[in-house]
Amino acid sequence: MEQEYASTLLENAVNQLSRLPGIGRKTALRLALHILRQEERMGVDLGESIVALRKGIRYCVKCHNISEDEKCPICSNPLRDASTVCVVESVKDVLSIENTGQFRGLYHVLGGLISPMDGIGPSQLEIDSLVKRVEDEKVDEVILALSATMEGETTNFYIYRKLGTLPVKITQLARGVSVGNEIEYTDEITLGRSIVNRTLFSESFNKDVQ
Amino acid sequence: MEQEYASTLLENAVNQLSRLPGIGRKTALRLALHILRQEERMGVDLGESIVALRKGIRYCVKCHNISEDEKCPICSNPLRDASTVCVVESVKDVLSIENTGQFRGLYHVLGGLISPMDGIGPSQLEIDSLVKRVEDEKVDEVILALSATMEGETTNFYIYRKLGTLPVKITQLARGVSVGNEIEYTDEITLGRSIVNRTLFSESFNKDVQ
Repeated sequence: MEQEYASTLLENAVNQLSRLPGIGRKTALRLALHILRQEERMGVDLGESIVALRKGIRYCVKCHNISEDEKCPICSNPLRDASTVCVVESVKDVLSIENTGQFRGLYHVLGGLISPMDGIGPSQLEIDSLVKRVEDEKVDEVILALSATMEGETTNFYIYRKLGTLPVKITQLARGVSVGNEIEYTDEITLGRSIVNRTLFSESFNKDVQ
Repeated sequence: MEQEYASTLLENAVNQLSRLPGIGRKTALRLALHILRQEERMGVDLGESIVALRKGIRYCVKCHNISEDEKCPICSNPLRDASTVCVVESVKDVLSIENTGQFRGLYHVLGGLISPMDGIGPSQLEIDSLVKRVEDEKVDEVILALSATMEGETTNFYIYRKLGTLPVKITQLARGVSVGNEIEYTDEITLGRSIVNRTLFSESFNKDVQ
């Protein structure tokens, strides 16, 4: 149903907002009317911040994380440990891992996972550039921090094979019972892995204290 | 928890987006990263449409609907019936009624409902301007199209009293069983009203055909 708006400005804003994921035309209209009810500065700031975001952001030439300069702040930081590279699927995963405060190395953003179902092959991902990085730079360890899904495991294995001949340690995130989860509702594969890879109880104290 | 972003541009966009109703910081980040993944034109169009919306929209001097000019397109349209004024709570209600295609008169947007609980009194609403409009212009009928809630009924009654001495017909939206609703789940007050105000079955054909 084509909805008729009183104003082409409103119609245009609703059209644009409803192109965002999870925002339908009804929500878009509600957001647009909310913006109109606020003072002018707020709506203008919102709009301008989106334009500035889209125009100002590019990708780090080294790790493919978002950046405002040629290299992102993480790759440019001399205090980070350049010998450890954490391989992640997306920019969002970089933020998640940074927020844990547990990692001081660098990242490599693949831009996706290998998924034949979705037609995504290794060549569409930043895998060759990862291999080149390991070849050219002094990388001691590559941490595979991809999702514990079929796509993630496939990509892990592909990268493992690609890096196989290089003198680098390849690790992956520990699999185990999620903190806060009940054993009763943990799937058997996870439970099995967490028994095999059990850790010293005394170590858990040190790990939690930062 | 203060989240650290790789870029102040991203941080700023997330801050602005998360000020929208129903959008938390997680959703704001998801939207910002989505905008970054799309081609540049899309993000710029979105941002610019919001700025244009907020800068370009004002309120119709006559009916207080949103407008790009002094008078809104509905008030300016000579084909609309200026003798019938439909009183609504908000701009959104104007859109809803316009979408039914059943009303050819003009509107009057109150900007809210009388609600002592929320500290909203008649003076904060466009009620005086409604009375003045009925006094000064040739208005034959005022349709009260407010919500069937306590605030709506209170506001209906207040307007009814205010207009009481003027030679104008005051009507309100029919109360009845919502189309598509089952009798079993219709509340007794609505059911009672819909029996008292029952309509000729044959009339329902004509009303549905447009």
